Amino acid sequence: MGSCSSQSCQSCFFEYETERMIVVKSKVVGSVFRLIQFLILVYVIGYVCVVQKSYQETDSVISSVTTKVKGTGFTNTSDLGARVWDVADYNIPPQGDSSFFVLTNMIVTPNQTQSTCPELPNQSTICMSDSDCLEGSNDVRGNGIQTGLCMNYKETVKTCEVLSWCPLEIDINLPEHALLAAAEDFTVLIKNSVTYPKFNFHKRNILPDVNSSYLKQCEFNRKTDPYCPIFRLKDMVSEAEEDFQTMAIRGGVLGIMIDWSCDLDWPEHHCGPKYSFRRLDNKIPENNVAPGYNFRFAKYYKTTDGRETRTLIKAYGILFDVIVFGTAGKFNMVPTIVNLGAALTFLSLVSSVKWICNWFLLTCTKRRDYYSKHKFTYLDNTDDNAETTYGTR
Amino acid sequence: MGSCSSQSCQSCFFEYETERMIVVKSKVVGSVFRLIQFLILVYVIGYVCVVQKSYQETDSVISSVTTKVKGTGFTNTSDLGARVWDVADYNIPPQGDSSFFVLTNMIVTPNQTQSTCPELPNQSTICMSDSDCLEGSNDVRGNGIQTGLCMNYKETVKTCEVLSWCPLEIDINLPEHALLAAAEDFTVLIKNSVTYPKFNFHKRNILPDVNSSYLKQCEFNRKTDPYCPIFRLKDMVSEAEEDFQTMAIRGGVLGIMIDWSCDLDWPEHHCGPKYSFRRLDNKIPENNVAPGYNFRFAKYYKTTDGRETRTLIKAYGILFDVIVFGTAGKFNMVPTIVNLGAALTFLSLVSSVKWICNWFLLTCTKRRDYYSKHKFTYLDNTDDNAETTYGTR
Amino acid sequence: MGSCSSQSCQSCFFEYETERMIVVKSKVVGSVFRLIQFLILVYVIGYVCVVQKSYQETDSVISSVTTKVKGTGFTNTSDLGARVWDVADYNIPPQGDSSFFVLTNMIVTPNQTQSTCPELPNQSTICMSDSDCLEGSNDVRGNGIQTGLCMNYKETVKTCEVLSWCPLEIDINLPEHALLAAAEDFTVLIKNSVTYPKFNFHKRNILPDVNSSYLKQCEFNRKTDPYCPIFRLKDMVSEAEEDFQTMAIRGGVLGIMIDWSCDLDWPEHHCGPKYSFRRLDNKIPENNVAPGYNFRFAKYYKTTDGRETRTLIKAYGILFDVIVFGTAGKFNMVPTIVNLGAALTFLSLVSSVKWICNWFLLTCTKRRDYYSKHKFTYLDNTDDNAETTYGTR
Repeated sequence: MGSCSSQSCQSCFFEYETERMIVVKSKVVGSVFRLIQFLILVYVIGYVCVVQKSYQETDSVISSVTTKVKGTGFTNTSDLGARVWDVADYNIPPQGDSSFFVLTNMIVTPNQTQSTCPELPNQSTICMSDSDCLEGSNDVRGNGIQTGLCMNYKETVKTCEVLSWCPLEIDINLPEHALLAAAEDFTVLIKNSVTYPKFNFHKRNILPDVNSSYLKQCEFNRKTDPYCPIFRLKDMVSEAEEDFQTMAIRGGVLGIMIDWSCDLDWPEHHCGPKYSFRRLDNKIPENNVAPGYNFRFAKYYKTTDGRETRTLIKAYGILFDVIVFGTAGKFNMVPTIVNLGAALTFLSLVSSVKWICNWFLLTCTKRRDYYSKHKFTYLDNTDDNAETTYGTR
Repeated sequence: MGSCSSQSCQSCFFEYETERMIVVKSKVVGSVFRLIQFLILVYVIGYVCVVQKSYQETDSVISSVTTKVKGTGFTNTSDLGARVWDVADYNIPPQGDSSFFVLTNMIVTPNQTQSTCPELPNQSTICMSDSDCLEGSNDVRGNGIQTGLCMNYKETVKTCEVLSWCPLEIDINLPEHALLAAAEDFTVLIKNSVTYPKFNFHKRNILPDVNSSYLKQCEFNRKTDPYCPIFRLKDMVSEAEEDFQTMAIRGGVLGIMIDWSCDLDWPEHHCGPKYSFRRLDNKIPENNVAPGYNFRFAKYYKTTDGRETRTLIKAYGILFDVIVFGTAGKFNMVPTIVNLGAALTFLSLVSSVKWICNWFLLTCTKRRDYYSKHKFTYLDNTDDNAETTYGTR
Repeated sequence: MGSCSSQSCQSCFFEYETERMIVVKSKVVGSVFRLIQFLILVYVIGYVCVVQKSYQETDSVISSVTTKVKGTGFTNTSDLGARVWDVADYNIPPQGDSSFFVLTNMIVTPNQTQSTCPELPNQSTICMSDSDCLEGSNDVRGNGIQTGLCMNYKETVKTCEVLSWCPLEIDINLPEHALLAAAEDFTVLIKNSVTYPKFNFHKRNILPDVNSSYLKQCEFNRKTDPYCPIFRLKDMVSEAEEDFQTMAIRGGVLGIMIDWSCDLDWPEHHCGPKYSFRRLDNKIPENNVAPGYNFRFAKYYKTTDGRETRTLIKAYGILFDVIVFGTAGKFNMVPTIVNLGAALTFLSLVSSVKWICNWFLLTCTKRRDYYSKHKFTYLDNTDDNAETTYGTR
């Protein structure tokens, strides 16, 4: 290249430059060099081909999940009497998409109406007389708008009266055993269709060889029925190393992970769903702050005289969240060529390796001066007799 | 480098080593070398710049979707009588976020109350006498808690009685024509705002040049109105190569994909939404197992005597799922410099290429021995007269 | 390599080839070379280690979010009378997952029944006589099925009669001040557990050193309480540079971004949530088309004679969307080795750099001819006396 500058470009174009080499016949140096070459080759092939599968084109999963819970529970409480709970009652919201909630415990406050009642007693609501209460005051942690009156909450306790949905919910008496304990035997059918659009690959978690009669009676079991898409709630919670009945009291969030990672160079039937389960909310109430999962909802009714009443339910339960992930790979020419290029670049590491070999050759071998003399031609910048030196050197 | 070890470090620091080369003036070898150099250059420029656009910084889309369905349907069934359905009736849940459901078919079971009734007949519920029924038994596939009695289901069939929401839903008589067939003419307005925060780029799918009067009457059409954000349900299902009325009977899941991939080096108006549609659930009921999409929900009422009744609805319909994706790229100095470095590394491939040229030069050319003699200086490790050899060479 | 072809493979295996070099003692050339070497080293270390942290293994966050809104509001309208709104009333849907909606404004249409009434007047519904109305016609932008009659809407306006939920909603009179203006003082507790499964790292946004009493009274403030997980709605909207009362009238979508990006080589307490807020829908109604966020839902009642009535609510409000993202990195041997390899490859850039130095050496220095003579051995393809030339050179 440099040599071209003093010539015409055209003749230069057809010149080929290559390094002048010395060849050292030495078993020691040769062995070291070959060993290092071999290690780099193993590294490139091992990493690029086996670990990263760089010869494959990859695609991310597109997934659709629907769920359907089955099972009925029975409760007998003073508020509600004997009552059967079916899916329309305990599954909220009912849509059966990738996230579903199963009610396991609750505090029910029936027959609430818009009216006035004394607040729940706490530091800021306890009063001695009306002058302690401020009309129109609206505490964000309170239950309504104060009317300015001080009323008897119990015989011994007076609190400020509020305009609110009365009677107020008393949520300190959470049942110690989950009301809908039977929920542990409920089952859920998870329907999951996945697509890898690049490879035109479609599959669902209900495998082709599963028939209707099997599906009517099977239940997921990691050992005996790993591909049955019907899961017993208790089993899922157990797989996440939790106790269902404990979790049912205060609620929680459980992740159902479906892994569709596939190597599509293998036949299609090797590509199947791999299920795993883990609790997603923090179970250890170290600081005892707001553990579990609950929310409030209400059913609204109208009385015959047109007044609205509602039943307020503080619902504790388990929120199941189906998370589908995965990447598929398949042999493709383009990434193969691209990564072959990258791998070749890796091979140029050999030139870095030569640094080590050269150092070894010129420092550690007995005949280092002899090698050095042949490898290096010293040109001294300050030497005036360069031409002469050149001749004799 | 090796040459430095025997000298003082300081003087070594200012030494510059460069290979001694031989220059071969050969049109054949030169051409081969230039050709390979050219191919690598094309590869680097083509792949790094054109395909990967490595000179661009990229950002992933942040998106917000809201939807609003419009349209009214009319049904006339024995259960419900003549009835008009508007959006608050058929759109469940009503929130209009990125996923919305349109009811198209249903099985309605009105006036259910908590009471007892004979189970639906199947292998495990048919009984001859009370002794076949177990009080308190609760089958996960059943509809309630058995009372231990055996009752007439029909004149000829006896089944175990259960405590449940009675009368039970009979879900085998799904209407063969979708009840809310008119849903195909419903329209949905999809509002989608996207942000590429890195580039401070904001856009919505209602383009700036769209005015209110156009929006009041337009309907998406891939050819004539590709940017109208109002979609007729039937058109979307057709684009996914499905038949609306067939899909409406048993329900399904339809993905509305919005692709916002943009090259922001071009003017802003080149960046627009690209819509596509695909059915996400498995349409082919190969194994005839749980096809379509449905869920149950209930409306709760209170009678004048305070008893709770409900209307149970098994809702079949189409769940529309808006999936927004995309990556934007824009020229930026940092990745340009970074990738230029990577590209230069690619160019060092030339050293790998020399391997081929050298092999060609030293094997295939007529004067290979001549070239070889100049290129290689053989140093024999076992030769005692090394110094002498060196002198005469 | 080429030199091997003429020998037995075995002896060749232990040969080591290395380039013959010339060493130039020149402060100028040496300095340039060292400078470029230094720049490349800085680049590699700076980019690979500091910017990309390539010595770290990375993992994406798995997150679980639950939310709980607190606060009560008071409205006094002609439709509903004095009324207190609590969380079960204004939080729709009630589940408290990563997305929650707070009602701030509404148009209420109580006591709708399935019956007939004249359509809302517009171009296509105004009629002069029954012949202008088509029985059974069902306009997608209308409110029901036309009965074919032309009725008085007002004294001066006649419109086609429809079968629908009557009376129809009149949604042009949206209150100019948000009805539930008090919503700005509502608070939301966001519970967010994150997991980096690869590192077995678990953390929640309620930090371990937060106790129950702090949590009962704290409120997020970027300066004074940056780790309090309780957010006042107004503060969040303000952080997104919006005005709550303005946004409350027509509704909107607000993103609550939680960034959990962490360098886990540092102690665990350095890894905390970073909150940010931004409005996700387009606030500027440039084209005044469908601004804000609203949806319709209904509460269904049954009258004593079994007829169904409903209260239709067009709900305007703010949809809060909690978006959790982040990547954690931690030192790991595997990527360190892998990237060390990549970095070494970068160092082979030095060979590209030599191109520059060689050009400088052979073009710009005073003694360029002298250097050139030593560096290059010209072999002329057309020279017949190659052997001779070789001997004398």
